[in-house]
Amino acid sequence: MSYNTFGRLFRFTTWGESHGPALGATVDGVPPLLEITEEEIQVFLDKRKPGQSKYTTQRREPDAVKILSGVFEGKTTGTPVQLMIENTDQRSKDYGDIAERYRPGHADFTYMEKYGIRDYRGGGRSSARETAARVAAGAIARKVLGDGITIRASMVQMGAHKIDRSRFDWAEVDNNPFFCADAQTAEEWATELDAIRKSGSSIGAVIEVVAEGVPAGWGAPVYGKLDADLATALMSINAAKGVEIGAGMEAARLTGEENADEMVPGANGGPQFMSNNAGGILGGISTGQPIVARFAVKPTSSILTPRKSVNTRGEAVDVVTKGRHDPCVGIRAVPIAEAMMAVVLADHMMLHRAQCG
Amino acid sequence: MSYNTFGRLFRFTTWGESHGPALGATVDGVPPLLEITEEEIQVFLDKRKPGQSKYTTQRREPDAVKILSGVFEGKTTGTPVQLMIENTDQRSKDYGDIAERYRPGHADFTYMEKYGIRDYRGGGRSSARETAARVAAGAIARKVLGDGITIRASMVQMGAHKIDRSRFDWAEVDNNPFFCADAQTAEEWATELDAIRKSGSSIGAVIEVVAEGVPAGWGAPVYGKLDADLATALMSINAAKGVEIGAGMEAARLTGEENADEMVPGANGGPQFMSNNAGGILGGISTGQPIVARFAVKPTSSILTPRKSVNTRGEAVDVVTKGRHDPCVGIRAVPIAEAMMAVVLADHMMLHRAQCG
Amino acid sequence: MSYNTFGRLFRFTTWGESHGPALGATVDGVPPLLEITEEEIQVFLDKRKPGQSKYTTQRREPDAVKILSGVFEGKTTGTPVQLMIENTDQRSKDYGDIAERYRPGHADFTYMEKYGIRDYRGGGRSSARETAARVAAGAIARKVLGDGITIRASMVQMGAHKIDRSRFDWAEVDNNPFFCADAQTAEEWATELDAIRKSGSSIGAVIEVVAEGVPAGWGAPVYGKLDADLATALMSINAAKGVEIGAGMEAARLTGEENADEMVPGANGGPQFMSNNAGGILGGISTGQPIVARFAVKPTSSILTPRKSVNTRGEAVDVVTKGRHDPCVGIRAVPIAEAMMAVVLADHMMLHRAQCG
Amino acid sequence: MSYNTFGRLFRFTTWGESHGPALGATVDGVPPLLEITEEEIQVFLDKRKPGQSKYTTQRREPDAVKILSGVFEGKTTGTPVQLMIENTDQRSKDYGDIAERYRPGHADFTYMEKYGIRDYRGGGRSSARETAARVAAGAIARKVLGDGITIRASMVQMGAHKIDRSRFDWAEVDNNPFFCADAQTAEEWATELDAIRKSGSSIGAVIEVVAEGVPAGWGAPVYGKLDADLATALMSINAAKGVEIGAGMEAARLTGEENADEMVPGANGGPQFMSNNAGGILGGISTGQPIVARFAVKPTSSILTPRKSVNTRGEAVDVVTKGRHDPCVGIRAVPIAEAMMAVVLADHMMLHRAQCG
Repeated sequence: MSYNTFGRLFRFTTWGESHGPALGATVDGVPPLLEITEEEIQVFLDKRKPGQSKYTTQRREPDAVKILSGVFEGKTTGTPVQLMIENTDQRSKDYGDIAERYRPGHADFTYMEKYGIRDYRGGGRSSARETAARVAAGAIARKVLGDGITIRASMVQMGAHKIDRSRFDWAEVDNNPFFCADAQTAEEWATELDAIRKSGSSIGAVIEVVAEGVPAGWGAPVYGKLDADLATALMSINAAKGVEIGAGMEAARLTGEENADEMVPGANGGPQFMSNNAGGILGGISTGQPIVARFAVKPTSSILTPRKSVNTRGEAVDVVTKGRHDPCVGIRAVPIAEAMMAVVLADHMMLHRAQCG
Repeated sequence: MSYNTFGRLFRFTTWGESHGPALGATVDGVPPLLEITEEEIQVFLDKRKPGQSKYTTQRREPDAVKILSGVFEGKTTGTPVQLMIENTDQRSKDYGDIAERYRPGHADFTYMEKYGIRDYRGGGRSSARETAARVAAGAIARKVLGDGITIRASMVQMGAHKIDRSRFDWAEVDNNPFFCADAQTAEEWATELDAIRKSGSSIGAVIEVVAEGVPAGWGAPVYGKLDADLATALMSINAAKGVEIGAGMEAARLTGEENADEMVPGANGGPQFMSNNAGGILGGISTGQPIVARFAVKPTSSILTPRKSVNTRGEAVDVVTKGRHDPCVGIRAVPIAEAMMAVVLADHMMLHRAQCG
Repeated sequence: MSYNTFGRLFRFTTWGESHGPALGATVDGVPPLLEITEEEIQVFLDKRKPGQSKYTTQRREPDAVKILSGVFEGKTTGTPVQLMIENTDQRSKDYGDIAERYRPGHADFTYMEKYGIRDYRGGGRSSARETAARVAAGAIARKVLGDGITIRASMVQMGAHKIDRSRFDWAEVDNNPFFCADAQTAEEWATELDAIRKSGSSIGAVIEVVAEGVPAGWGAPVYGKLDADLATALMSINAAKGVEIGAGMEAARLTGEENADEMVPGANGGPQFMSNNAGGILGGISTGQPIVARFAVKPTSSILTPRKSVNTRGEAVDVVTKGRHDPCVGIRAVPIAEAMMAVVLADHMMLHRAQCG
Repeated sequence: MSYNTFGRLFRFTTWGESHGPALGATVDGVPPLLEITEEEIQVFLDKRKPGQSKYTTQRREPDAVKILSGVFEGKTTGTPVQLMIENTDQRSKDYGDIAERYRPGHADFTYMEKYGIRDYRGGGRSSARETAARVAAGAIARKVLGDGITIRASMVQMGAHKIDRSRFDWAEVDNNPFFCADAQTAEEWATELDAIRKSGSSIGAVIEVVAEGVPAGWGAPVYGKLDADLATALMSINAAKGVEIGAGMEAARLTGEENADEMVPGANGGPQFMSNNAGGILGGISTGQPIVARFAVKPTSSILTPRKSVNTRGEAVDVVTKGRHDPCVGIRAVPIAEAMMAVVLADHMMLHRAQCG
């Protein structure tokens, strides 16, 4: 795991900048004989695609994926799968005025400090466009996992407004532009985000991703823990500032009695858990319960309100970001979260098989 | 980064079980010519050592570290440094009754599911004793970083009780058994934890770790992000359930205006940041501000109140954990957090030097 | 280093099959601010390109490289460089008759055994076309190394016929189709290879690759040895069966007196070596002398003489390979060897800088 | 694979210097439930142990291995296995006079150039004592592979004197101090090496290592090739200068007709190979035939004849090495070769299982 590569055995390297000719993922370690088509991958890319509603950036990208290698007559061959997405709607001129200005909250300054050069067009490599490549890789990871494992994510909080858990219904997620599992909250969010969007502001969010059907025993001590891998996976998503497993930060408030998930004899001879504060992971290894992770994303830093900053010469400037942006980047983070859960699990499925047969 | 190894260039592998003859860390990639002694490493181990106060486990371990390789005439040679700590106070009989019972909240069940075997004595490899090896490795990481970088951690929340930030004073941290930077809160925690300890219960906590003096430019996109590496580092600590960078989970509540850390021209020609919601990291790369991370640990699952569980034959049992345990594992997580911050930074210092000279 | 990825810090992953739409290399870890153009990379690809003379396969591929990412305004940005080469002259029909036959000496049988599927067109992933991606990555590695290091390879043996070392002249290498540093031997090889080519046969070869200007101190014990890394780099080239460093297999015949490279005081205060049996590497670390490696490639297994084999149903068949092939694959291995030397050295330059400043 | 770590999934890190308190191997990724004892590991260490005959160094080391972790009640638990060997017979005074002299052919100069410091006692980390840790790790790798795979090595050439292949008999290997499979040659070598030893000189050798019972399908393209992994494994052994697979360097002399291993229908429905020039590997993947590798080791550079060198101040000196050394290091390289073959195969067994189920 390093730099632009994620995973150990199911392992992909993403490449490409926001306004370059293309971006993609080189996926290595894929098991052979999996049936996969560009159309199947496209389904997931379409969920993440910009311009789906007025709540996401109006950049128009078809995000059409091409499989350039590793698939023969519709099946994976075990060799690297190259997934390429060409960029088509790069309005680089939108970014000309920020070539010399460091946008607050963006990676402009830090990239320049690190590399002494930056592709300022649309944030270059630091753009969330990179996540298209993850989503494509995630589609292959789902194939590795098979139909027995269900991975779903939804937005559970926008600003201070959380969903009502009593109304949680996965079936609602695709009925609103927020991937919200609570129809009533979705309507309220629509009103709230309309106001934020029109004012040129933005807002943060929390996304929850759940994997069901994962057998007990995946993961590993001590630095290959399933939860530690999910933490790095989710924290690597643009704008992420916090990651939680199960009870998450709230675990701090619990007593040992409250926190410990009790067990009773289950149907299949093993234990049945009576709660899931653990989020499906104990000692870094899956318990067989649903794996539950959440992460918070900050509001996009691209807003119309002028913010104080400096330019590349160290002079004070005001920055207003006029490009096409998401008022709540949390929305488009939902399919990305699913992809990252999928790749972590695919990797651990293979690791477990390698060591424990 | 895999299994029991952490890091890319500054890289250590920990080994050893709670009740085996010894545990340790094999630290590879250490730069040569660093002056290091067992005594200097011992200082950090002593902070983590059990039995320091009535609030931590009464197991008596000297945790005396031996350097077995990689140091010659007081200086590192560039070859692997083996740090070994012998176990001396293993009361394995304490654990005999849990050989066949799965303790709720512990890794007993999951290790058994994964491996088909477990060293049940004191939790074996899943015991927090493993963290002694991390702390030893962290002492070497500090040497790599040099005196210009200060890494300090403190406990900032116990149960629902947070410190008062207006009274935050690093100088207080070593004046109380909680590594608490707020003297008044420390006194209140003492009363609260006394009650919890006497009742045989336990409580969660939040630890904050801060690195000052880190230059701008360390870290890397996209899967080598400094924050993503910190996330996996901290989530790998026993009992951790949530990790935050800067504003953390609260970032979800902020608007773009509130969140964006504005910049003004600074003294040295670069920008000076006016706030630090970013926690010192933008786009996965350090900004030059303090790096601020927090993580929540759950209450220890070893409590005197009986909890429902099953045994290895799938039968219902009650579990009461009578061993010597910490009523608040967050306390001893403080020096571990410092160690993990140190190893992540040492790794990124070397990565940055490798790529960007 | 794993599967389709080579290197630790200067690290590339190749992808693509012989008869797929494209192939390429995803190069990660590239230092920023290196000036690089497609034209500069093309120079090296043109050396490896098929159809250059009657002694190499008549497949006509322009092997035109495109830089899809990681370069901005002519300079590397520190982010992954994607190098893509489109395939244009895939006469897949040539291979139809081997879809069900295992060609002796080829990877047909083993790929099928491993994966249960194979892209039989032109050998798929096992084709030497993959090496075009290496050569492209090698061009970037040379940029990392800078002008102070010279990497050159030549063919030093064809069949049993070795060059005459007394006539060795690097200037001759580009004057003949064999990359032979001895003009007279090149003429003799021409006659010999004509006969072999016309008979539909093939012949093996030995290639020598030399790096000059490498400073003392690159490399590392014990499993990051410079010679061990060169060994895996060269052995990974298609058809390679043996690798030698310095005296190589002949070292077995030497006495301690003959083998030890004596030193005398040198011009710059350090030692000057009086011989180079070590091939420029002692204890896995460069001595400052030229680094000298050789490897043997077997004759291509694609020949016109019928060979006994079996088909995918286990039945006896005769195999005659009529495709366009190289009578001596050693010729085109020369630029590949240079590329592999370059990538190993670039990786070790960065490793050394990381650890030893 | 990096620095002091070998392997991907079956992965070990060796540590320790020749004259430090101990050395060892941290073995990670070991499958659980393998029965293993210190005694079983000791068998292999005893083969490599110094002082076994007059032909190996007279240093007296029991090389007694201790298992410090990862084994519980006689079985592996899936957690890291720490194997420690304490040094007992370090006559460091023997090395005092070389503290400031660079021994020709040794790593003294290069370590100093790389690190600016070296543990000169017995060569420190560059000493062949490190290989004791490999042999211990190899014993565990054999357990992973199981009884169906037989790994044996023998010395097949000493100086210019090769064994007679027509007399090759594995049963002879343990009947002479050379691990020679040809009894008559062993006697002749005894005479020859006596003379070399008495003259204070040394001689090189070639070792062959063969694995039988490896199924077809292990290995991987393109940088995880089984032969490329063996190349780095064997070249990492002290004094190795050349590595061959199957026909090896001689492959250069062959025609396509001679080289291609023909196949006929075999007993189990698959092909039966009629020769093994490939050394059991095609396209980096095992064919099911015996895997055959060879490597040449140079003569030890520690000889009684004075050699010209320089000291750490750059002044001309003569070096005579009076310590206890092996006149033919090839002898003790035999069990090391077996260990390296075992660890490469164990790693690939696990890799294959991970990807291809």
